Amino acid sequence: MKIVCSRNELASAINIVSKAVAVRSTISIMECILFSAENDEIHLTANNNEMGIDTIVNGRIEEEGIVALDAKIISDIVRKLPDDDITISVDDSLKTTIVCEKAKFAITGKSGDDFSYLPKVEMENGVEISQFALKEAIRQTIFSVADSDSNMIMTGELFEIKDDLLKIVSLDGHRISMRNITLNDAYGDKKVIVPGKTLQELNKILSGEQDEIAQLFFSENHLMFLFGETTVVTRLIEGNYFDVDKMISNDFETKVKVNKRDLLSCIDRATLLSKEGDKKPVVMSFHDNTMKISMKSFIGSMNEELDIAKEGKNLEIGFNPNFFIDALRAIDDEEVTLYLINQKYPCIIKDDKGTYLYLILPVNFINS
Amino acid sequence: MKIVCSRNELASAINIVSKAVAVRSTISIMECILFSAENDEIHLTANNNEMGIDTIVNGRIEEEGIVALDAKIISDIVRKLPDDDITISVDDSLKTTIVCEKAKFAITGKSGDDFSYLPKVEMENGVEISQFALKEAIRQTIFSVADSDSNMIMTGELFEIKDDLLKIVSLDGHRISMRNITLNDAYGDKKVIVPGKTLQELNKILSGEQDEIAQLFFSENHLMFLFGETTVVTRLIEGNYFDVDKMISNDFETKVKVNKRDLLSCIDRATLLSKEGDKKPVVMSFHDNTMKISMKSFIGSMNEELDIAKEGKNLEIGFNPNFFIDALRAIDDEEVTLYLINQKYPCIIKDDKGTYLYLILPVNFINS
Repeated sequence: MKIVCSRNELASAINIVSKAVAVRSTISIMECILFSAENDEIHLTANNNEMGIDTIVNGRIEEEGIVALDAKIISDIVRKLPDDDITISVDDSLKTTIVCEKAKFAITGKSGDDFSYLPKVEMENGVEISQFALKEAIRQTIFSVADSDSNMIMTGELFEIKDDLLKIVSLDGHRISMRNITLNDAYGDKKVIVPGKTLQELNKILSGEQDEIAQLFFSENHLMFLFGETTVVTRLIEGNYFDVDKMISNDFETKVKVNKRDLLSCIDRATLLSKEGDKKPVVMSFHDNTMKISMKSFIGSMNEELDIAKEGKNLEIGFNPNFFIDALRAIDDEEVTLYLINQKYPCIIKDDKGTYLYLILPVNFINS
Repeated sequence: MKIVCSRNELASAINIVSKAVAVRSTISIMECILFSAENDEIHLTANNNEMGIDTIVNGRIEEEGIVALDAKIISDIVRKLPDDDITISVDDSLKTTIVCEKAKFAITGKSGDDFSYLPKVEMENGVEISQFALKEAIRQTIFSVADSDSNMIMTGELFEIKDDLLKIVSLDGHRISMRNITLNDAYGDKKVIVPGKTLQELNKILSGEQDEIAQLFFSENHLMFLFGETTVVTRLIEGNYFDVDKMISNDFETKVKVNKRDLLSCIDRATLLSKEGDKKPVVMSFHDNTMKISMKSFIGSMNEELDIAKEGKNLEIGFNPNFFIDALRAIDDEEVTLYLINQKYPCIIKDDKGTYLYLILPVNFINS
């Protein structure tokens, strides 16, 4: 194999596929990036068997061929080379030479024979969504995916399509995050659970441009994202997702409108007094047109008042402050509306248009 | 005590004195900042017994008094408060209330009685230097202070004043870094060893402005830096510093001029192949008007050529690449001159004006 690519194009392609390179795997080929130069296309591919990424890099093929290179080493080398053309050539014994201006590196490649290629997904009936909308919706829900594997389904996000609506949901047993995106077209019903880890990595390489499109292709066990020159294939989590609609009530006894930024800074200040692990709740007390926020711990106490517009009953209720912070950070609106029932029922933050809904369970704050 | 300060002034003063707060001390008062409001001045002070910092903060004293507050807690609180006036009031039981707009924190202070105040240093015959020059000289030498305490003297830097010359030197047994600064005035001879840790912290709070002055006051056991509203007092390291002039030879067999940035990037690239701990040397081969840089490890090999202007003999010599990188990063010149004798003697990098000198011992590279 012999290829010539610009340093910047190569660095950016390596950066993209690196998201699917296995970290400290026992199978050393999974820590490699496959370079293949065939049929006039230079492909870089990585696959950790949970997700795989393939991207096409611009360049000139002087000799066709395939080689697998340690991802960390080739990435370090390319990153530190000057911004000029890089020539990568591989001889029959897989000795790989990387030349840029007067710098010359020699490393040993691996055969591509053991590399596990990406699973095939039929490219039919692709669902189109702007990269911006997809990236935002993932950012706005990913934080409430459960970390632990004790319930596999909670480690993924629901992607549900009905007509022209894409609904993305995550939940971890203490809270639910939901985003609804209206698509430009209507599609057949789809309902899959996508691993949270894949979405986290995917989000780092989506462009975030409103007018750049990503296409989603569904197969029985996989979901494929196609955008620009890049293909991301992820396995799906098996099972049925929770019936979220049943968990969400439309009833409320107290409805509160409050400035989002003020509420966020105030709760953020309260967390100062809660050391990691001691799980002190923030107490919110809604009384007429004032909301009092307070926190007490062995460090000290704080309280602060915010102006609100309230309908319904007065109420005092406790929450994990970090769950509130996560939800408020995910909302772009200037003002948010909280719907509450009583001390034992969750708080729901949602907008009238139905683009988002965040549900947070309360915690006991008496004697705490 | 009751004082009112702007949030930004207070945050910046806390940031300054925090550099002298003890980290995880068994003496809890050493983790505190002393707030004192007396004689129309609000002072913040911290002292970890190696170094102490005192700074004056603008504000209004409504009631005189003194309190010691946990540095981490007060710093977190002030950082997260809105940008407005902050009122700190302390009652007789040392209960401390911090109010800003509608936010109110209550924490418990400590008595200032156990606080160890800064040692007194006579403010006579202060040596004046621009904060910029001092900050730069520290940055350009601090990296070759020895980490370990096995030789206390190596953990400090020599500050030597003769007439109008300030010489700053550090060495760690493998290399020497030296900077000479011409002062605006002549002073009496002084020669002290300043702890490297103090200089590292001092450097974070010096302004780096050419026209802002720092004054240095020397006593038998202490050195005091006075700049703006801030006083930093450090203990000195006892003992006689190494006779550095005797270690530095003016003889050379090979003299090489090379572009600094090219040499730096080239050595930086070579370090890719040297994993931490395996200490692979970079080999430099000076031959006529070319310098060949090469590195070989279990990962692979690299080599690169640079154009040079050489006087004297050809030479092949090995170095720890990181020592070269540190020295080159500290030099602002476009071109550097290396002076070499043979494979066993150090390389000296210095300018003609005598503003800097870096000495690096070679390493054996045969069979490595």
